[in-house]
Amino acid sequence: MLINSPAMDRLVEAFRRLPGVGRRTAERYAMQLMAAPAAVAGELSEAVARARAAVTECSVCRNLTEQDPCVVCASDRRDRSVLCVVEHPPAALAIEKGGVYRGLYHVLHGVLNPLDNVGPDELKVGALLRRLEGGEVREVILATNTTAEGEATALYLSRQIAAMGVQVSRIAHGVPVGGGVEYADDATLTRALEGRRPV
Amino acid sequence: MLINSPAMDRLVEAFRRLPGVGRRTAERYAMQLMAAPAAVAGELSEAVARARAAVTECSVCRNLTEQDPCVVCASDRRDRSVLCVVEHPPAALAIEKGGVYRGLYHVLHGVLNPLDNVGPDELKVGALLRRLEGGEVREVILATNTTAEGEATALYLSRQIAAMGVQVSRIAHGVPVGGGVEYADDATLTRALEGRRPV
Repeated sequence: MLINSPAMDRLVEAFRRLPGVGRRTAERYAMQLMAAPAAVAGELSEAVARARAAVTECSVCRNLTEQDPCVVCASDRRDRSVLCVVEHPPAALAIEKGGVYRGLYHVLHGVLNPLDNVGPDELKVGALLRRLEGGEVREVILATNTTAEGEATALYLSRQIAAMGVQVSRIAHGVPVGGGVEYADDATLTRALEGRRPV
Repeated sequence: MLINSPAMDRLVEAFRRLPGVGRRTAERYAMQLMAAPAAVAGELSEAVARARAAVTECSVCRNLTEQDPCVVCASDRRDRSVLCVVEHPPAALAIEKGGVYRGLYHVLHGVLNPLDNVGPDELKVGALLRRLEGGEVREVILATNTTAEGEATALYLSRQIAAMGVQVSRIAHGVPVGGGVEYADDATLTRALEGRRPV
């Protein structure tokens, strides 16, 4: 939105790759960065590059983390007999903030969705089942979202896991139906964890 | 929104400095960048840094540009007797895209707004009046937005400029009242330019 400025055109295109950002919004972001002190743009540029370089996937639980294994998997004060399965990293953080869960996590990075060609191979399902083969885990809590895809994923996983002789539970419907785990408040998440039922 | 990740927290804060971006939106942007291929984050980081370094202010018209003087001011095919005054750089681009205007521009980088302590000294008004002292400019077209502040700024400038013996006109109200110049379509901008009236 400047006359003859390839650098600004390129910046607008880069912003448009963020979720829900159209041309107008991308242009507003780009103009704001040009109008603000250079330090603001410098900080954004550096923060993006550093975060992408610093954040990696935990080789155990597949959560995004700055250290591998992540702080939860590396801790000696967690209950290693319980695994909580979530769709995405923010859901693990939300449960962690609730402050009552003492077990470990496993992050699927998505849900089963045949319409989008997302099957078990596209998620971290194989890694989850391999973790259970060790025999240390006695219970898996399925904390996928209460959407159609989240429920279908929980059902699929419950069958796989039960077949291995490991107890499976689903978080209670304290989490609002249709909502995301990462948006629930601490009290709701606590009730959801406490009210879990065997599948 | 990761467990114990200062790099992600820093990235979320950096995104929150963009206009209209709250915590949830900033977190969505940050997560998307971590989930996407590293090249996507690399491109955004680089595009931000390069644009901020490449884009500067034209020493003549104060528009943002990658070369100084800007392509419009440096062109030998523009009518140097007419100046079009706009609030922000995107407004100049919008008029340029209209394709009928052949004069030069002057970018104020804002409007008079006593409530926000924005007076003439906070805008590029002094630079505008100095351009007129050369005597080459015969007409100034005021293309500030048709908001209360835009109209007040146009009124203020029209008095200053008329006192220098230069003709002043205001773009016609083809631009929707209350709307921004940068959002008007080509036809509307063309009519607004053609229908300008002496102040």
